[in-house]
Amino acid sequence: MNALKVVKIGGRVIDDEAKLDAFLKDFSKLKGSKILVHGGGSTATKIGEKLGIQPNMIDGRRVTDDETLDLITMVYGGLVNKKIVAKLQGLGVNAAGFSGADLDIIPAKKRNSMHLDYGWVGDIEKVNTEWLMKFLREDIVPVLAPLTHDGRGNLLNTNADAIASFTASALAEFMDVELMFCFEQPGVMNKEKQITQMNLLLFRHLKDTGIITDGMIPKLDLGFKALKKGVQKISIRNFDAVNRKKTGTELIQ
Amino acid sequence: MNALKVVKIGGRVIDDEAKLDAFLKDFSKLKGSKILVHGGGSTATKIGEKLGIQPNMIDGRRVTDDETLDLITMVYGGLVNKKIVAKLQGLGVNAAGFSGADLDIIPAKKRNSMHLDYGWVGDIEKVNTEWLMKFLREDIVPVLAPLTHDGRGNLLNTNADAIASFTASALAEFMDVELMFCFEQPGVMNKEKQITQMNLLLFRHLKDTGIITDGMIPKLDLGFKALKKGVQKISIRNFDAVNRKKTGTELIQ
Repeated sequence: MNALKVVKIGGRVIDDEAKLDAFLKDFSKLKGSKILVHGGGSTATKIGEKLGIQPNMIDGRRVTDDETLDLITMVYGGLVNKKIVAKLQGLGVNAAGFSGADLDIIPAKKRNSMHLDYGWVGDIEKVNTEWLMKFLREDIVPVLAPLTHDGRGNLLNTNADAIASFTASALAEFMDVELMFCFEQPGVMNKEKQITQMNLLLFRHLKDTGIITDGMIPKLDLGFKALKKGVQKISIRNFDAVNRKKTGTELIQ
Repeated sequence: MNALKVVKIGGRVIDDEAKLDAFLKDFSKLKGSKILVHGGGSTATKIGEKLGIQPNMIDGRRVTDDETLDLITMVYGGLVNKKIVAKLQGLGVNAAGFSGADLDIIPAKKRNSMHLDYGWVGDIEKVNTEWLMKFLREDIVPVLAPLTHDGRGNLLNTNADAIASFTASALAEFMDVELMFCFEQPGVMNKEKQITQMNLLLFRHLKDTGIITDGMIPKLDLGFKALKKGVQKISIRNFDAVNRKKTGTELIQ
């Protein structure tokens, strides 16, 4: 099977144009098939503040209301996605930006809970691989924004780590997939020390002892899920290390 | 040859969600291959005002400076484009939204003048038809935002009528193309009276006598250009008439 790299980049890389340019240069040099998944960074928050869009908090949880969905669609689906595509084109990479609504690549279900209102948040139903495979076969590099749709005309806000994990898992049926979550740290850390390998037992232990907290928990959950679904290599690494062989924290069975 | 309809919608349809929904419903019922090209409407201006982005005027001409390009990328490339795609998906149309940077569909040159600074404005170099044809063959409906790119990493602001005219012309090599410019009036008007047919001679006369002015001039110029390039039918019509046979102002040789 052919090799595929699915790379996810998050907030702080996107907020800093020099860092983003350096990352995209490294990414453009990755050999073989590749997909880039991006989050949004703090740009959406900053623009939201200027537009007077107040975070809609219910029970301490941010709700994706109409205004917030529009904001995310503008910033993630437009500004960030199209800028990355144009920059990659400038680096000789034939990139194409998509939300999950385009070509129906990622249909999702609006999250529904008796107890909590999440607003326009989508849980991925599936990733349709047909067009993605066509693009990869022709050396196109898909760039995925963290937006899905409900098939009834509505866009949905969806976590970028989940987009990366589900996309990598779906394509693992056809390709040897490596999934890299890139962020601002060298890997998963225990205080000052970087953890080079992590399995489920160690993950649970570090979670129970409060070493791993917050956003790292769902990221690792999504990583281990992808591992179970046949993604062959998964790592959490610094965004400056996308082009290096062994680095960051590797997730193993 | 197979038939293709290229439909351009402009400002006021996009600004009014009920009108946009009605238009998209009609558009979704158009038989055969189709492409939708959209402008931006006043949403960009409104959001720009809230963000404190002042129109940068030089010699009475609005310049697309960095901030304005970001605004247009957000609103046209993100909000408007992805909303339309999600709505079309909800209507059973497998739509896919693109800027000219995606898949390098529309490379452009930054407009350069010794005398005037236009900023990040792009004049279309060509429309690459390979991917568009692949999409059309598989019943995908491309939705094009008024953005192109310079191939050096920069997006460029490009007139939506030009995107529609150039796209229709490029595809006329492979398909029987009909181009419709949809807007808020029933067609080109001479005072209260709608003009049903227009050729170059009449156009020049109406321009010389001041009947046709402003934005209608470049729209008609682009229409007659497409006619010369082999587009078979061209009309300027109301956005509620996309599904009707004969209506609006037809451009003839």
